Amino acid sequence: MAEKYMSMENIKFLLYNVHNLESLFTHDRFKEYNRESIDMMMDAAKDYGDKELLPYLEEMDRQGCVYENGEVTIPPQIAKVFSYFGETGWINATESYDHGGMQLPHMVHHAGGFIYAAANNSAIGYSTLAGGAANLIVSFGSEEQFQKYVKKMWEGKWQGTMALTEPDAGSSLSDITTTAKRQEDGKFKITGQKIFISGGDYKEADNVIHLMLARIEGAPKGARGISLFIVPKRRIDEDGSLQANDVTTAGIFHKMGQRAYVTTHLIMGEKDDCIGHLVGSENLGLKYMFQMMNAARIEVGLTGAAIASAAYYASLEYAQERSQGRLPSSKDPIEPPTSILNHADVRRMLFFQKAIVEGSISLVLECSKLIDLIDVSDEKEKEDYQLLLEILTPIVKTYPSEMGIQSVSTGLQCLGGYGFCVDFPLEQFHRDIRITTLYEGTTGIQSLDLLGRKMMMQDGKAAKLLFGEISKTLNEAKEFEKSKRHAISLFNTLNDFQQVLNRLIGLAVKGQTNEFLADANLFMELSGIIVIGWQWIKQGIAAEKALKSGDGDAKYFESKIKTMDYYFAYELPKSKGLVTRLMDTEIITIKGDNEYLV
Amino acid sequence: MAEKYMSMENIKFLLYNVHNLESLFTHDRFKEYNRESIDMMMDAAKDYGDKELLPYLEEMDRQGCVYENGEVTIPPQIAKVFSYFGETGWINATESYDHGGMQLPHMVHHAGGFIYAAANNSAIGYSTLAGGAANLIVSFGSEEQFQKYVKKMWEGKWQGTMALTEPDAGSSLSDITTTAKRQEDGKFKITGQKIFISGGDYKEADNVIHLMLARIEGAPKGARGISLFIVPKRRIDEDGSLQANDVTTAGIFHKMGQRAYVTTHLIMGEKDDCIGHLVGSENLGLKYMFQMMNAARIEVGLTGAAIASAAYYASLEYAQERSQGRLPSSKDPIEPPTSILNHADVRRMLFFQKAIVEGSISLVLECSKLIDLIDVSDEKEKEDYQLLLEILTPIVKTYPSEMGIQSVSTGLQCLGGYGFCVDFPLEQFHRDIRITTLYEGTTGIQSLDLLGRKMMMQDGKAAKLLFGEISKTLNEAKEFEKSKRHAISLFNTLNDFQQVLNRLIGLAVKGQTNEFLADANLFMELSGIIVIGWQWIKQGIAAEKALKSGDGDAKYFESKIKTMDYYFAYELPKSKGLVTRLMDTEIITIKGDNEYLV
Repeated sequence: MAEKYMSMENIKFLLYNVHNLESLFTHDRFKEYNRESIDMMMDAAKDYGDKELLPYLEEMDRQGCVYENGEVTIPPQIAKVFSYFGETGWINATESYDHGGMQLPHMVHHAGGFIYAAANNSAIGYSTLAGGAANLIVSFGSEEQFQKYVKKMWEGKWQGTMALTEPDAGSSLSDITTTAKRQEDGKFKITGQKIFISGGDYKEADNVIHLMLARIEGAPKGARGISLFIVPKRRIDEDGSLQANDVTTAGIFHKMGQRAYVTTHLIMGEKDDCIGHLVGSENLGLKYMFQMMNAARIEVGLTGAAIASAAYYASLEYAQERSQGRLPSSKDPIEPPTSILNHADVRRMLFFQKAIVEGSISLVLECSKLIDLIDVSDEKEKEDYQLLLEILTPIVKTYPSEMGIQSVSTGLQCLGGYGFCVDFPLEQFHRDIRITTLYEGTTGIQSLDLLGRKMMMQDGKAAKLLFGEISKTLNEAKEFEKSKRHAISLFNTLNDFQQVLNRLIGLAVKGQTNEFLADANLFMELSGIIVIGWQWIKQGIAAEKALKSGDGDAKYFESKIKTMDYYFAYELPKSKGLVTRLMDTEIITIKGDNEYLV
Repeated sequence: MAEKYMSMENIKFLLYNVHNLESLFTHDRFKEYNRESIDMMMDAAKDYGDKELLPYLEEMDRQGCVYENGEVTIPPQIAKVFSYFGETGWINATESYDHGGMQLPHMVHHAGGFIYAAANNSAIGYSTLAGGAANLIVSFGSEEQFQKYVKKMWEGKWQGTMALTEPDAGSSLSDITTTAKRQEDGKFKITGQKIFISGGDYKEADNVIHLMLARIEGAPKGARGISLFIVPKRRIDEDGSLQANDVTTAGIFHKMGQRAYVTTHLIMGEKDDCIGHLVGSENLGLKYMFQMMNAARIEVGLTGAAIASAAYYASLEYAQERSQGRLPSSKDPIEPPTSILNHADVRRMLFFQKAIVEGSISLVLECSKLIDLIDVSDEKEKEDYQLLLEILTPIVKTYPSEMGIQSVSTGLQCLGGYGFCVDFPLEQFHRDIRITTLYEGTTGIQSLDLLGRKMMMQDGKAAKLLFGEISKTLNEAKEFEKSKRHAISLFNTLNDFQQVLNRLIGLAVKGQTNEFLADANLFMELSGIIVIGWQWIKQGIAAEKALKSGDGDAKYFESKIKTMDYYFAYELPKSKGLVTRLMDTEIITIKGDNEYLV
């Protein structure tokens, strides 16, 4: 087992040098915090990761989850971890003091979450889900619902879920058929099935609170007729005792990876006795759920970056310890073998991972900061931050997952045949990370969202804001020798990108919607390359500043500049092929009369 | 379980229309064959795949291999399959009649092997290894060795292996330390360890014949001091009885995929009683072994293409059956969901797979034909075919494996969350195919071989021959409307490629060997894109010819043209980023004084 799974130096560099976490402390909401207290939290997270998460990573994968006699057993460490996050106030750490939270900046919460996920990616989903589900009730539920459910979830006692997907409604949520029938007491009877529900059931949870989408009888078809319900596994009697609520676990899904993170198939209302409680107003369920989905999308990006981080350090450790072969320049067979860390191709594979991982975490923290700024800004600013967050959300979900998969596979490659064996963690990371481009909206869905909605909304206002932010960084880079040349490259790519966008918008304007969106996936890939390039220029500038100031470890800052150099030498050029295709008007993938796929 | 794992129409199109298998039948060696007999063999292979290979794919993965009390148990179907290949003469089918073979063209043998591997990639390695090991004895061993070992291996009774890798000598074979000590009777006593030995031991094999590299005491250091030995698990007494030969299986490797294909750790000579028999001359072992390694490299490419083929059809079948969402142009929620086969992004993912799979198989058959032509040509032609085969070997190993991994991952993506679940075969294919860029020389090793050796040998003669072959195809394309425009694109990319090669050769000439080879991996990627583009033009031309002749299924030929269109719209542009990087003189990955990888 590799010992290092993340770099604390990197997290602190990103929090303080790149994203200026300390600027948040000037706001009332965050005034209790300072660098010292945050450092302590980060160190505590790392300590917990070292002692209670990483050591169980492999064991939990081997144990997996078991469904027997209607009951679900998950690895025993999970309940312990969930309780810990509850007891230490981590689950609701970002909530306001008056809700019992710590008003912790999301930047810090995500940085901590990254550490936990890098140590053990299957263990942390339970608390993240509980937190997200609870927050949904906080945002849109009643005071009674808050009192009844939220506290237990925040305490790490009751599991929460997001119950959206159905057998015939996965990517297309508007097609859900789970039904809510209004009762005389204002409650609803729920009938239907949900699949792929993470954390949906396990013995150790006293209760599971499903935040579930369903259709109230007679509601309009499509997305406009979906409502949000609290559907507990066990309902709470007047006296506080728990009674079965006719939510049956029909089975669990057996997965290639994240095997300790249970995925369930639920059936509601087999005995016509499943009670659901409406959250907020009727037919606004999908809108509400987007709060949790958007948060979850950032979490998925974070998870992708975290698994890739653990894989990077495992492969780096192997490369440091393994000797094999000689440099091309010295083929003398008498000479002892060199460390594989000296081989250019191994170095390329390591720089690739480092560039992906650190670029991705930086983007996650960029988004986290936007959430924090939304929390503390006035209306006008808030809207801008909101738009920026919205346009970045599909990218922060997709880049760390798509490129994270490649990054982990590259990490595995560094180990040669050992990478394919269970004696090293790479094969598990390779299996674990593969889910990230699938859940919380596949890459295809994220790409449609980015191009079809986010780029277009408010006449492209979000896109303009994003370009403005990137330009601000490029301008700043003019003052920094090492970052400047890369800023020029990125500026040119951004121009190409705008040409692409103009061409595509032209199709949209002409009503050629299918053509407009046909290559949304490639558009996403291009956007990711640019946005991560932006994050690398930010890191380059911060490193140059730090070098000038003489404050901190110069070698570390130089490693940042070198990795930025790598990114612009090896990653940015990939934009060229994408731009070529995206400017090409030839239609290939839109279904015509003939079927060519045979 | 998906039912279709390969396309017979495609195999026949490639054999007859693209690679003109029938032209081989004019040669004496192959004169007994005709299209009818070959079709029958292909159909029989498919029938065996349907009935005896595919049905056990998942089961064999679940069973895996077990090491207990020094004994190795593999899934029971394996021995049956191995016997079948022996009894039907498949293992030595390409051997000459006087050796008991069938003088089957390698093209046909590989086409059949592709069918078997697509049906069950873990089941076929055993017989491929036995055949390859036997052929090594045929080529370089004595008549006595031939009589003693080869027949049993060809009959599917004795397993054969290639025993190269050691704990400290994987990619760097010249560092092996297994020792051979000459005895008075001319035999050798072997001591040492070998790891990652596929098919290295299992209970059902009466014997295992290791073709093993070792160093004779006092031999020169490095590659020039390696000899080849036959080291049987059980040695054959004068009376024909089998006695233990002090080859101990110390354990097996537990792998992420290909779990039915056992990988062993062997120890020779613990009791100083392991006898080895020298094959051919002393110190020429590595040279001999390259025969088996080169054959195995093509087999790995074939396996990558085969797994990707099975994944393609599994994802296509899913896409055909799954309805979800609506086209962007029709967001009416009342409208019933459409088949996901109609979504542009799903179609892109399917075309991507089809382009990779069919391009890869075509290249495998291109190489197979070269082997056949070598068998029937005079000296002058033989040398050219040999050089072409040598320069294509690292590419045919690498493209189908590297791109096959991406192709399978894309197939998995088509299934959404189900792709991650064991109920569908995609997750197994994703695990299985990951080994292909590792064994028989990693992609890094193949890339060094391609750029450092193959491009340079005989003053670039192999490269010139390859460019000549590609140019021949591009010229022919001038007569074909649909292929012509792509031929022009490929011509331009080939020019870029030559510029890149000139720049790199310049570095080599100046003795800047490390700089010359630093980006060999990207050079390989670029080479692969070009060579597969060439294969697609060949297929395009063949399809246009067939359409003109009116012979055959027009829809199928149109699907070929459409897939060629896809390749040139989406895959060829990837060359642009690679060319940009390869023309860039900035050094990033060559180790300098500082260590930036932290």
